[in-house]
Amino acid sequence: MKALRFEDNRLHLTGAAAIPHRAGEALVRVTMAGICNTDLEIVRGYAGFHGTLGHEFVGVVEDSPDPEQIGLRVVGEINAGCGECELCQQGDPRHCLNRTVLGIHGRDGAFADYLSLPPENLLVVPDAVSDRQAVFTEPLAAACEILDQAEIGQRHRVAVIGDGKLGQLIARVMATTECDLALIGKHLDKLQLAADIGIKTVELQWLRVAPADRFDFVIEASGAPAGLKLALDLVRPRGAIILKSTFNDAVSLNTWRIVVDEISVIGSRCGRFEKALGLLEAGAVDVEGLIADEFPLAAGVEAMRQAQTPGTLKVILTT
Amino acid sequence: MKALRFEDNRLHLTGAAAIPHRAGEALVRVTMAGICNTDLEIVRGYAGFHGTLGHEFVGVVEDSPDPEQIGLRVVGEINAGCGECELCQQGDPRHCLNRTVLGIHGRDGAFADYLSLPPENLLVVPDAVSDRQAVFTEPLAAACEILDQAEIGQRHRVAVIGDGKLGQLIARVMATTECDLALIGKHLDKLQLAADIGIKTVELQWLRVAPADRFDFVIEASGAPAGLKLALDLVRPRGAIILKSTFNDAVSLNTWRIVVDEISVIGSRCGRFEKALGLLEAGAVDVEGLIADEFPLAAGVEAMRQAQTPGTLKVILTT
Repeated sequence: MKALRFEDNRLHLTGAAAIPHRAGEALVRVTMAGICNTDLEIVRGYAGFHGTLGHEFVGVVEDSPDPEQIGLRVVGEINAGCGECELCQQGDPRHCLNRTVLGIHGRDGAFADYLSLPPENLLVVPDAVSDRQAVFTEPLAAACEILDQAEIGQRHRVAVIGDGKLGQLIARVMATTECDLALIGKHLDKLQLAADIGIKTVELQWLRVAPADRFDFVIEASGAPAGLKLALDLVRPRGAIILKSTFNDAVSLNTWRIVVDEISVIGSRCGRFEKALGLLEAGAVDVEGLIADEFPLAAGVEAMRQAQTPGTLKVILTT
Repeated sequence: MKALRFEDNRLHLTGAAAIPHRAGEALVRVTMAGICNTDLEIVRGYAGFHGTLGHEFVGVVEDSPDPEQIGLRVVGEINAGCGECELCQQGDPRHCLNRTVLGIHGRDGAFADYLSLPPENLLVVPDAVSDRQAVFTEPLAAACEILDQAEIGQRHRVAVIGDGKLGQLIARVMATTECDLALIGKHLDKLQLAADIGIKTVELQWLRVAPADRFDFVIEASGAPAGLKLALDLVRPRGAIILKSTFNDAVSLNTWRIVVDEISVIGSRCGRFEKALGLLEAGAVDVEGLIADEFPLAAGVEAMRQAQTPGTLKVILTT
């Protein structure tokens, strides 16, 4: 089968990859996959992963230990836990110490004709949700995770830093809480995308926030070390910064402001897929407008190059 | 009057300081004051403060707009709010944007014969609490603040990094929760002080923590940038780091671990005095054992030098 792999520190497309069907798991034929910043970071050395890239996908179950799954259109939770530790027993394999993660850690990913995942990781896509929407389920769930970690509501002032793929999704999810929201970014065209659906936007160069107007919550999704420093400038005393960006660089921080102003910095990663599918089915979050380009998997290297071009939103691979 | 002042980037004792009695405030004759790491950091440039140092004290009210306070033995909340902003109206001047802070920001401090504070900042010291105990009220309140920010109890594994003054107080407060506690430090003599009162201690060089044994809460009170990096190594996924150290250096951090393991980093500063006085009155926390040295205020420069000597616990000034 075809697969877009990162091996020997080199990204390449192969037509001769083995179908990765693990014992006891479901085999999914991938129909559509999305390129995430994490994929781009892996190619730069993040996470030390080597293998087939990709963790955002929608596909059809070809085989499964659960015969009722066969033929269903599904998305899949990317963390596969050991099933035995305390966290797994509590139903949260996302932090299992022995987990594998689709296309990120110890498990081949979704930029391929087929992928393998435990049957319990798969969720059926509702009929009302198209493939082009469903492929956003994983990053949308990551955006929803913030609402599981912080009680954000109408009375809160919330800033999202970063007008890229993740920042856009986060802003859309935050807008559903009716909070006082501002999306901060550098790119007029991307800010316009959010403004078009009623989100207040601020171009970074015009950002001025008086101390008394600082935000209750600042969500850092810029993907760059400078974002966290900006977040510290924008958050009010006793406010919270939600950290979403993962990258391979160290950040130099003056931590005294965190202490003196009793700020909380909360790391936030994967979320539950049910909530994301619910938002998509309800039409509460527009995602298709974020698709910048579509490539066939066979042109995967070119697609990754396109995704790396500054200013590019979501690039989709189809098989 | 005598005062130990930091002026023109120079620490000096003067015998000719003006008595700092602000209009509408109480005048307190200081009987005992404690030297804190923040005082030492100020002399290194932290907070940009110039004036009389010191914010840990016990004293007697000489004058006050509230005549019932006169003659009482008191300690004092060090943050003086504007009284008008939202935070002050909610009864929490500790984060007022226009606050002054005793001996730290815009207000002369406690290393002097007299200090001035708003009458509402003063709390009466119970008879059962000696001056040598009461002088610990402010740092003990800062240790208690952690329990207002995180629900720590019997079922939690808690590490305190730093066997210095603040780490020792924090360990003593944490011990009152009956959590599974370890104090981590570099100094055998200081670790012994904690061990003597039943606290489990670990010398840093022998510290080995397997991934499955990481801590639910790690409290960073080492006063050094390396402490936060160690805290990140010690905290479990979805655990919390409580940051207590303030210093003037930037810390270089790999923030991806915060994100991937959804760790919370919670800044923690001043706490409420009532709780600290309650612990002292109940005899629940031993503090006098932390006094390393006592100097008269007239020998304040020498006292600061002694406090700066590595390995020194609390140095006390008496007037």
